[in-house]
Amino acid sequence: MSKKIGFIGLGIMGQGMATNLIRAGFDVTLYNRTMSRAEELAAEGASVANTPAEAAQGADVVITMLADPPAIHEVILGPDGVVEGLKQGAVLVDCTTVDPATTAETLKAVTAKGAAFVDSPVTGSKEGATNGELVLLAGGDAAIIDGIRDVLCTFSKKIIHAGPVGSGTALKLSFNLMVSHMIVALSESMVLGVSAGLKPEVILEAIMAGTIQSPYYEWKGGAIMDRDFTTNFSTKLMHKDLTMMMSAGYDLNVPLPITAAVKELFAMSKAQGNNDEDFCSVVKVLEDMANVEVKKT
Amino acid sequence: MSKKIGFIGLGIMGQGMATNLIRAGFDVTLYNRTMSRAEELAAEGASVANTPAEAAQGADVVITMLADPPAIHEVILGPDGVVEGLKQGAVLVDCTTVDPATTAETLKAVTAKGAAFVDSPVTGSKEGATNGELVLLAGGDAAIIDGIRDVLCTFSKKIIHAGPVGSGTALKLSFNLMVSHMIVALSESMVLGVSAGLKPEVILEAIMAGTIQSPYYEWKGGAIMDRDFTTNFSTKLMHKDLTMMMSAGYDLNVPLPITAAVKELFAMSKAQGNNDEDFCSVVKVLEDMANVEVKKT
Amino acid sequence: MSKKIGFIGLGIMGQGMATNLIRAGFDVTLYNRTMSRAEELAAEGASVANTPAEAAQGADVVITMLADPPAIHEVILGPDGVVEGLKQGAVLVDCTTVDPATTAETLKAVTAKGAAFVDSPVTGSKEGATNGELVLLAGGDAAIIDGIRDVLCTFSKKIIHAGPVGSGTALKLSFNLMVSHMIVALSESMVLGVSAGLKPEVILEAIMAGTIQSPYYEWKGGAIMDRDFTTNFSTKLMHKDLTMMMSAGYDLNVPLPITAAVKELFAMSKAQGNNDEDFCSVVKVLEDMANVEVKKT
Amino acid sequence: MSKKIGFIGLGIMGQGMATNLIRAGFDVTLYNRTMSRAEELAAEGASVANTPAEAAQGADVVITMLADPPAIHEVILGPDGVVEGLKQGAVLVDCTTVDPATTAETLKAVTAKGAAFVDSPVTGSKEGATNGELVLLAGGDAAIIDGIRDVLCTFSKKIIHAGPVGSGTALKLSFNLMVSHMIVALSESMVLGVSAGLKPEVILEAIMAGTIQSPYYEWKGGAIMDRDFTTNFSTKLMHKDLTMMMSAGYDLNVPLPITAAVKELFAMSKAQGNNDEDFCSVVKVLEDMANVEVKKT
Repeated sequence: MSKKIGFIGLGIMGQGMATNLIRAGFDVTLYNRTMSRAEELAAEGASVANTPAEAAQGADVVITMLADPPAIHEVILGPDGVVEGLKQGAVLVDCTTVDPATTAETLKAVTAKGAAFVDSPVTGSKEGATNGELVLLAGGDAAIIDGIRDVLCTFSKKIIHAGPVGSGTALKLSFNLMVSHMIVALSESMVLGVSAGLKPEVILEAIMAGTIQSPYYEWKGGAIMDRDFTTNFSTKLMHKDLTMMMSAGYDLNVPLPITAAVKELFAMSKAQGNNDEDFCSVVKVLEDMANVEVKKT
Repeated sequence: MSKKIGFIGLGIMGQGMATNLIRAGFDVTLYNRTMSRAEELAAEGASVANTPAEAAQGADVVITMLADPPAIHEVILGPDGVVEGLKQGAVLVDCTTVDPATTAETLKAVTAKGAAFVDSPVTGSKEGATNGELVLLAGGDAAIIDGIRDVLCTFSKKIIHAGPVGSGTALKLSFNLMVSHMIVALSESMVLGVSAGLKPEVILEAIMAGTIQSPYYEWKGGAIMDRDFTTNFSTKLMHKDLTMMMSAGYDLNVPLPITAAVKELFAMSKAQGNNDEDFCSVVKVLEDMANVEVKKT
Repeated sequence: MSKKIGFIGLGIMGQGMATNLIRAGFDVTLYNRTMSRAEELAAEGASVANTPAEAAQGADVVITMLADPPAIHEVILGPDGVVEGLKQGAVLVDCTTVDPATTAETLKAVTAKGAAFVDSPVTGSKEGATNGELVLLAGGDAAIIDGIRDVLCTFSKKIIHAGPVGSGTALKLSFNLMVSHMIVALSESMVLGVSAGLKPEVILEAIMAGTIQSPYYEWKGGAIMDRDFTTNFSTKLMHKDLTMMMSAGYDLNVPLPITAAVKELFAMSKAQGNNDEDFCSVVKVLEDMANVEVKKT
Repeated sequence: MSKKIGFIGLGIMGQGMATNLIRAGFDVTLYNRTMSRAEELAAEGASVANTPAEAAQGADVVITMLADPPAIHEVILGPDGVVEGLKQGAVLVDCTTVDPATTAETLKAVTAKGAAFVDSPVTGSKEGATNGELVLLAGGDAAIIDGIRDVLCTFSKKIIHAGPVGSGTALKLSFNLMVSHMIVALSESMVLGVSAGLKPEVILEAIMAGTIQSPYYEWKGGAIMDRDFTTNFSTKLMHKDLTMMMSAGYDLNVPLPITAAVKELFAMSKAQGNNDEDFCSVVKVLEDMANVEVKKT
């Protein structure tokens, strides 16, 4: 018998994920703060709940894709929240990127209801969610995760078992650390090169010709040269994630000298007004200082 | 008629490059400070000169692959140096990674002899040199470079025309900036993750599963987890290159806040005694601080 | 008629402050988690309470000198805490260094009881507390502060009115930012100089001979050269304060690139095992790297 | 018999120093690239030379106060330079702030002429030069320095013997490192505090009330609040000095993570157009980011 699913959080990523679940034939109940968005999706063949608790009621698997820790406190842990509705034996999979403390709190509340918890932030873009090609960084019991692979595979191409609960969250921070550094490296490299008279295309060509090549440099380097800062992941969110990395470093006694400097560069980018643009707009902070523009010639 | 080639500098990279030139059938005259190394290679079918000037005499193309700016001053610009031997109409291709000032000096001296100059640092490893798969970052006149493509192609799979003379040097600094940042990012990411209880293999798996993937992360991440710090590019040389990047930033009025921090992390790595190890040993600075080891489990 | 005072928190600083209050003839009721310390001081002419609430009962002025935000939540805001005992019209003066959020919470709770709140972190050393020479950085209503000057002056030589409630906390963060930077500057300056062959006494002499002179450099420079890292203010606490500065910078959208780097240097100092030593032991991080010691000759 | 003095370099500092020498009754011969400035001063009772060599001819003591290493190469070491004119047994005192390499070169040239060399950068302001209250950081033989105390005391209130030749240069770098950090600390502290709603006067009052007080904070804090960026020491020169510190750190294997970050903040200040303003204008970089102004209320 097909599993019953509760899905909560229909933002950019959540919409794609829920759509894939519905189309795969699961019995899905949706909840979203802005009701209308849930109702639109319901047309694809889902029910709509009035509260997170209601969406969770009777579900075998509940999936949440929210904005940040405060949203977790409200939608999962608060009154009429997911935890209230969880049945014994259910599995809650939280795909939100949060800090370790929030993950620990959720685990405690979920366990108290006799349910299981998997913290599973995702990597990938909006397109990845739509096409079912996200990568899940899943922290939790291996048998539990295996038991819901049919559900998770509807929206992901790869499930990485990070370790016990909390590991997904930790892995996402290590992953986003890489992402933030890569964009900053690309920015300093291109601004220095363009200031020296190079065409930015040539810099990108050199990068893509060696073993340091990465599809990410091609994507984001292209966006920068096209001056296209349409948001895939905003400056504001990257700055928030960097704060969580520094906080994890503090808790774990890990000095992170370069990440600390990267974080302040994104603080400068926010100060420049790039808050809601894609975080690769951080290049503009350096461009302004160097009085050049990394633009396709 | 086949071109006559002078080749000077038979270090790790130079050996592979010269061997490819000889095997391609060019008439090559070698010079190396340590004579014996030139004599060994000569057995493959080359002549040996007693001075750089002699190696350059009568050559259509002279290729130099030296250590650093002081070596340029001695071997190219000094008494009995390459410039003394250059014939009118010859082309000097310097593959050394140097600073813009040294490139400018060489250009002036070469031009005064009625010869042409191409500054063309390379990217790629020792294996790349051996297999003829280096990437050349060539600065100089496009027609001049086109005219010697047959020579350059013996040891390179791709020639990127960076722009006028000096552009190759600038492009190499932008390129190595990326390289230094990537290793530092990988190091902070893995040390943070391992401190949080993750297996390093899992961190690398997550990195390689997304669009941020790069062959370089697989190579160097693997080396770190295997605790294999055999030198491909030494800490000492990366630190020197970072100094040249900062110097270029100073001259061009480009603030490089993150590269400045990266440079000091490599200074710490030197202080830790990793001078002659591969520069990815910088991870050990962070490991020591965090009291963990990023080791395959 | 003399004011009735509740005093809570008899750590290094609190002891000196409370002693001065008692000797000035005020009617003081003491509370300390470790009861014995309160009983010793009571011999000087004070009462001892069993709970913070009891110490606050009937008091005109309650003074708290605690460790950190969690202590505030327990001792001031928790069950049997100060707020429970506050009478209408009383004034609570919190001398703890905390973050703006905690100050805001305390204000709300105190106001709800019809009492007034002054956040007043102090600057100065243990000796300053003993000799009544602390400087108070007081945030609150000017008239309220004026009304309790007789109380505050028993342990302070100067009361700076920072602004409305919350300003004392903010001012303390700006102040400690200076302190952290000064020690790091002194450390890099002396380690560089000693590495160049200078005697550390000569470096300090040069610093003290110019307008940049400061009693602080003489004090801490002397301690470093004497290798005396007896704690006046610990590495652990300075690192915690730096985290609060970075957090304030995040909330207020103020990039703090140098303070971010300073914070990580203290993280390295913690990693080196200097957690409970005086924070000027951060010099040892740099000494280890440079392989020198800044020691009196 | 009074000593014969050659004085070269009549910039802001040099003018005051030379005037004091003349008024003390020494037999002074002046040289300055811009002749007219030397002629004005000559009216006070000095001779004017046509070349540096001529100013040095027959002099017992030659004092130079120049701009930077290139000026040393021209005026001291070049044709018709000071060294050409030096008599055997003379003493050359160079008060310019330079790098260790330049000091070493000058020493070699001076020694070859049978003369003695003292590298003696100064600390103090234009007013200090005028009032004879500079501090000399003198590197050289103690007996040599003692023998010319009567000369040096005309423009300095204190002569610190830093050690052998080269030590004055090293000490000046350690000193200016402090200066650069202090202004950056003051800037981050005040920008953070003002962003939190504090009056800048109150921040400065708190700083000046504790042991961290320094006349320098009062002076520069006042200038910042008055928005008076009249140059005493320019952004450009401080950035150049920071480059020399980093270069010394490189040569001596001393990581300087915070100074590296400080240097890039001054690079940003240059990029903002503050090149020729006083270096405390670096506060404007942070103000722009935080969208506040540290202005007297």
